[in-house]
Amino acid sequence: MADRLALFTGGGFADSHAKTAHGILRYGPREVVCVVDAIQAGRAASDVIPYARRPVPIVAGVADARALGANVLVIGVAPFGGALTDEWRAALLEAIAAGMDVEAGLHTVLAEDPELSQAAARAGVRLRDLRAAPPDLSVPTGDRPDVRVVHTVGSDCAIGKMSVTLELDAAARARGLESAFVATGQTGIAITGWGIAVDHVISDFVAGAAARLIEEGAGRAPLLFLEGQGALGHPAYSGVTLGLLHGGQPDAMVLCHRAGSTEIDDYPGTPIPPLPELVATYERAAGWVRPARVAAIALNTRGLDDDAARAAIAAAAEETGLPADDPVRFGGETLLAAVV
Amino acid sequence: MADRLALFTGGGFADSHAKTAHGILRYGPREVVCVVDAIQAGRAASDVIPYARRPVPIVAGVADARALGANVLVIGVAPFGGALTDEWRAALLEAIAAGMDVEAGLHTVLAEDPELSQAAARAGVRLRDLRAAPPDLSVPTGDRPDVRVVHTVGSDCAIGKMSVTLELDAAARARGLESAFVATGQTGIAITGWGIAVDHVISDFVAGAAARLIEEGAGRAPLLFLEGQGALGHPAYSGVTLGLLHGGQPDAMVLCHRAGSTEIDDYPGTPIPPLPELVATYERAAGWVRPARVAAIALNTRGLDDDAARAAIAAAAEETGLPADDPVRFGGETLLAAVV
Repeated sequence: MADRLALFTGGGFADSHAKTAHGILRYGPREVVCVVDAIQAGRAASDVIPYARRPVPIVAGVADARALGANVLVIGVAPFGGALTDEWRAALLEAIAAGMDVEAGLHTVLAEDPELSQAAARAGVRLRDLRAAPPDLSVPTGDRPDVRVVHTVGSDCAIGKMSVTLELDAAARARGLESAFVATGQTGIAITGWGIAVDHVISDFVAGAAARLIEEGAGRAPLLFLEGQGALGHPAYSGVTLGLLHGGQPDAMVLCHRAGSTEIDDYPGTPIPPLPELVATYERAAGWVRPARVAAIALNTRGLDDDAARAAIAAAAEETGLPADDPVRFGGETLLAAVV
Repeated sequence: MADRLALFTGGGFADSHAKTAHGILRYGPREVVCVVDAIQAGRAASDVIPYARRPVPIVAGVADARALGANVLVIGVAPFGGALTDEWRAALLEAIAAGMDVEAGLHTVLAEDPELSQAAARAGVRLRDLRAAPPDLSVPTGDRPDVRVVHTVGSDCAIGKMSVTLELDAAARARGLESAFVATGQTGIAITGWGIAVDHVISDFVAGAAARLIEEGAGRAPLLFLEGQGALGHPAYSGVTLGLLHGGQPDAMVLCHRAGSTEIDDYPGTPIPPLPELVATYERAAGWVRPARVAAIALNTRGLDDDAARAAIAAAAEETGLPADDPVRFGGETLLAAVV
């Protein structure tokens, strides 16, 4: 039976912490039956969050979602600390008892919770922990399937690499290309329904996890858009970035940057170099294992008006000699043309 | 009570898989009372393995070790797959019952083994799992203690970075400098008694683990020799290498290379670039977060005769313009002078 999702946001649908729900609505290919949110109940999702695009109904409780035919309850909000609250627990137990699977990317592993796992066993439903890594991960074999891999890399964390990757995939499919988005983080996995959160695997196996994802992606489409993580110049996460780059072995990269940023957000004082230097850095680092070029610049222009956004994009193109755009704002077609 | 070690090698003391026992004998500061190895019993350790240097007795069983005053049984051999055998289990239980701590870097976590952990609780001894990561690891804080950090980096895995690091530390202490070896892998931890196996932590926390080690090292000495892992050009482990480099924030690097190697051992076809290019690569990668220079070349000349070794070292020095030596073969003084 195909997934029919109800997105549970615990009263926080209007908040930015519900980014998983917003992302699933904007980008997810799976059917979304409704949002479950007692505070926004009665409205349509896209009326509350225009970015979400889909006008699905917001209902007050799990019973309403079940009545609409939902068969999977997705936790669509990332609470601070990532743990499960008592209020949410009650909703999850209600969904389980009603025969729904539950999907989550929390730090709390649902399947390790005795109450939830016993309830799920009784009801014959699945608890889907998106962050759990496959138990048999290892290093890359060295073989790479014959697919085209486009990988988003960036100047910092949390600048929209996932959204750029999803926009590229959407633009490719809109042009009739067979493509797939390859998720490497929990929100991407929640959106697309498969993937590995590479930042939560043992460090020896990051490249192996990326290689595994490319193998799995090759069974889905000949054109893969591999979501990037972190940045090579990020003092905490650079190792994840490099392992993912070397394991994913891209054919082309798209460099993501937030317009105007000059230092790493989490580590003030650590500079972000100019775009041409970043391009050279990523090309060199890829080349240590397998050569790849940066084919385009994706600029996050949030906070700028349209004129300022277009000027920033033109400046990035001029500075690097590469096609540039903000695909979340203006669509992914320009960047897509540069990478396929 | 100070550790008085018995090194258990399960009949394999003469084999290269007993490298943890050999390394502890050659480099470890802790007292070694004896080796426990039924096959080599009756001989002296350095008669079987000259590299091991110390002429400690090899005894047949745990009871003999206990009679010599040993209070810690160290598993000194890395079996293929890293699991515990039934024969070894009997020896460990005998040691525990005799009141000895047991120390190991196996994949099998001793403390999670019901039989061993119950026996240890009864006997009031500790099971020391060297591979276990601290439970509260996180990302680096961004602060760095005021110490000098010298970090070994390399062209590949398993080329002797740990030995080079230990030789540098030994040469520094021989010169009367206050220094400490900072272990980042299980064998180094077994040798020195502390450290974190950074290749076994969650990938998001590699840099945080390295930063934690520098903080801990700063409490031990003002000059730290930080053991490297992997290589920036290694298709499987490059992420570990970069995370360690950025978290460790070295002041100087020593580039380790095996004379004559031109491709990654585990991934034939992945080239090792010439030494000057490797020097530039590591300096650039360090500089993404904090600038550091490669100050010297450590060449592994095993398999060459003395004349060929000296010629290879001279060629490496000529090629890079840096001091070069094989510190395991000729001592660490030359390289030490370049990094302090």
